[in-house]
Order: sequence, then structure tokens, then C-alpha cells
Amino acid sequence: MEFAEYIPFWNKLTEAQQERIAGVIEYREVPKGTHIHDSSAECLGLVAVRSGQLRAYILSEDGREITIGRLFEYDVSLLSASCVMPDLQLNAMIEAEKDTQFWSIPACLFKNLIDESLAVSAYANSLISGNFSELMWLMEQIMWKSFDKRLAAFLLEETAIEESNNLKITHEKIANHLGTAREVVTRMLRYFQNEGMVALTRGTIEIVDADKLEKLQNT
Amino acid sequence: MEFAEYIPFWNKLTEAQQERIAGVIEYREVPKGTHIHDSSAECLGLVAVRSGQLRAYILSEDGREITIGRLFEYDVSLLSASCVMPDLQLNAMIEAEKDTQFWSIPACLFKNLIDESLAVSAYANSLISGNFSELMWLMEQIMWKSFDKRLAAFLLEETAIEESNNLKITHEKIANHLGTAREVVTRMLRYFQNEGMVALTRGTIEIVDADKLEKLQNT
Repeated sequence: MEFAEYIPFWNKLTEAQQERIAGVIEYREVPKGTHIHDSSAECLGLVAVRSGQLRAYILSEDGREITIGRLFEYDVSLLSASCVMPDLQLNAMIEAEKDTQFWSIPACLFKNLIDESLAVSAYANSLISGNFSELMWLMEQIMWKSFDKRLAAFLLEETAIEESNNLKITHEKIANHLGTAREVVTRMLRYFQNEGMVALTRGTIEIVDADKLEKLQNT
Repeated sequence: MEFAEYIPFWNKLTEAQQERIAGVIEYREVPKGTHIHDSSAECLGLVAVRSGQLRAYILSEDGREITIGRLFEYDVSLLSASCVMPDLQLNAMIEAEKDTQFWSIPACLFKNLIDESLAVSAYANSLISGNFSELMWLMEQIMWKSFDKRLAAFLLEETAIEESNNLKITHEKIANHLGTAREVVTRMLRYFQNEGMVALTRGTIEIVDADKLEKLQNT
């Protein structure tokens, strides 16, 4: 029952509730690039990440994307269980950014647990509150922050996640994270290169001057 | 105890819980323009609107605003009680758009009720989920919709709220709702006027062709 460790409210459940989870919880391993949830498909349920990296994003009618959250080891998300939350109407998609292992608790069981357990209800509350706060933060960035600063922040975040100054990521992918067009990303990266902050080679962005990016991000 | 009618979870409380609310609930009448909550001030608590109109918005460092939600009669908001939700970090402000009467349940009591009542916890959950969904919708509008459509939608919403085709609202106020600059609003309104959709006079915007605005909004 390794999964118990990945379910934050596990110790607050009764034994009977724990057994119900143990009976239906699903374990999956998916390769990088897999779409594990999309808004039109059936509701996946609560997702708990064992290893790897997931990305939640929204999609416009004409195919543009913007990342609204990322999930790492030990993270739990309700965005794939919106069907059980009557007031949660959203079209979030979730895809694996790396090879990922995760558990999912079916939506209907999770719904039952919310209805019968204060601890689970409080946990759902804190998850949604966290999502709401992150989305608010993201909207403030989009509204008030110029694109050069958002791109600098994204590159620094990626170097932290990858623990590397050599980012293997396409301009297209960055555009999908930040909700803009590829050309906009390319143009700004070239400007960063001219300013000596990054070096661009085919398929790779090398961070040359992280301090300068940091300063740009904070001005 | 007229307020009971404005508290959606009232009938699911124990008598003791109802008495605790009755003992501390506050009633206020504020004139249009009053700031009833700002992020730096102490936490107001749960707000329930008896009449009037409130607006929740966020503010950038340099003073730009964008409306994230509006509250009418019978609406309840948690945005003014974020202090009691540990994972809710936001800087929402709330102001009265019209003369407004409302009740507030102090934050600490509301926090206690969430912790002890499944019904209140579920209610808090649905409020935050609703806020999250609205914010997601708003972000999609900002990201994917051009400004002319957002302005058309705003004007139509205002005529519905005011039940009038003569809107007494400044370009500055509209800019603050939509998160843009006054000049941008003025320019677009002049274009709408040239297209025969609105007529502009000092301090008033008259909706001349609602159908055309509607079509613009939906294209």
C-alpha cells in the first residue's frame, strides 16, 4: 500500500474508507507526452503523482494553450475530478511532461468521501483554494507583467525543475506554456541572446547569465 | 432574524451554531463607492448581500484594476474571508458599486463552522469552486478574446444589470472593470459609435443597436 503515503488525508480516514480506496485505486505509468485527462473525456478522478511531471493547461478553440499548473512528485490534483465538484466548471487538460507514474482515485468514490468526511472536504477545499490562488497569480502576471519578464521567469523556473542550464525545449512548447505564439517567443529569445542572457542552438536554450534574467524578472 | 434567509447553509446548522452566528453577525449599510474590504486591512469575513451591488477586483502595483466578480442580492462571497482559508492567498478588494446593505459573519466564527460542519465545509467548497471557475472563464476571455468582443459583452451585461440602454458610466470605470487603459476604451467606443452600435454623450453611453453588439460578441 505504497500509495497511502501519497494521499495526504489517508490517516484521517476510517479503516472502512481506506479499504474502499484500496479496492479501486488505479496505478498507471505513462510515457512523456501522454494526455491523461481531457475535458471531453470521462472524469479521471483525483490524481496523486508518484514520480514524473504533469502539466495542466487550457486550450482555446483555435488550439492555443496556456499552462495553469504543474504537478510533481507527491502533488495531488482535483482538476481531473471537476465532474464531482458541482460548481467547478472548467476545461482543464492534463498531459505528462515526462514519463510519469501516478495513482488515481475514481471520481465517484472521491465524491462520496467528500460528502461523508470533514477531513476530505477540508482537503478538497485547500486544493481548490490553492488552485484559485495560483490562477489569480497567473492572471496578475498576464495582466500586469510584460512578456519579457514572464519569459525570464519561465526560463529560470525550467532551469530549477531540470537542474540544468541547458534547456531542451522548443519555442513552440514555451509558447504553449505562456499562452502566446511561437514567433513571439522566438523574437524575445533572440533579444535575450543579443543581451547575453541566453545562447540559442537547435533545440536547446542555454542559460548564460541567470543573474541578468533574475534582475529582468524582478524589475 | 431576516439574515437567516441570506445564509444558504442556515438550515443545516445546529441551533447552537445558529445562535453563535446570531450573536456576532454584523449588518451594514454603505453608500456607493465605499471600500468594504481591502487586502491589507483586517479580514472582513463571509459577506451576504441584502441589496445593492458589490464588485470584487484586483489591483496592480501601479494602480490598474480588473473586476473578478460581482455580487448582487442573495449572493455570498468568501473573497473577503481569505484569511481563514489557509491556502487562499489573494489580494482581492471589494467595493460597493451601488448603495449596498449586507451582513458579514466574522472570519474566525466562519472558520470554526467550516471545521466542525460538513455542510458549511461543502458550502465553502462550492463557493471557492464557483470563484475558480469564474476566474478561469475570465482568463480565457482575456487570453483568447479580442478587446472589442469583451467590451461588447461588458456593455450588454451592464444594460441587463441596469435594465436600461442608457449607461451612466465613465470610460475610466469600464477600463477598471476590464483591466485596460482609459484611452483603449475610448478608442473602441468611438469605433462602436461609428459603426452605429452606441451613441456617446458626456458621461453616458447609449446602446443604439444591441443586436449588432450581440453579434460582435459572439463572432
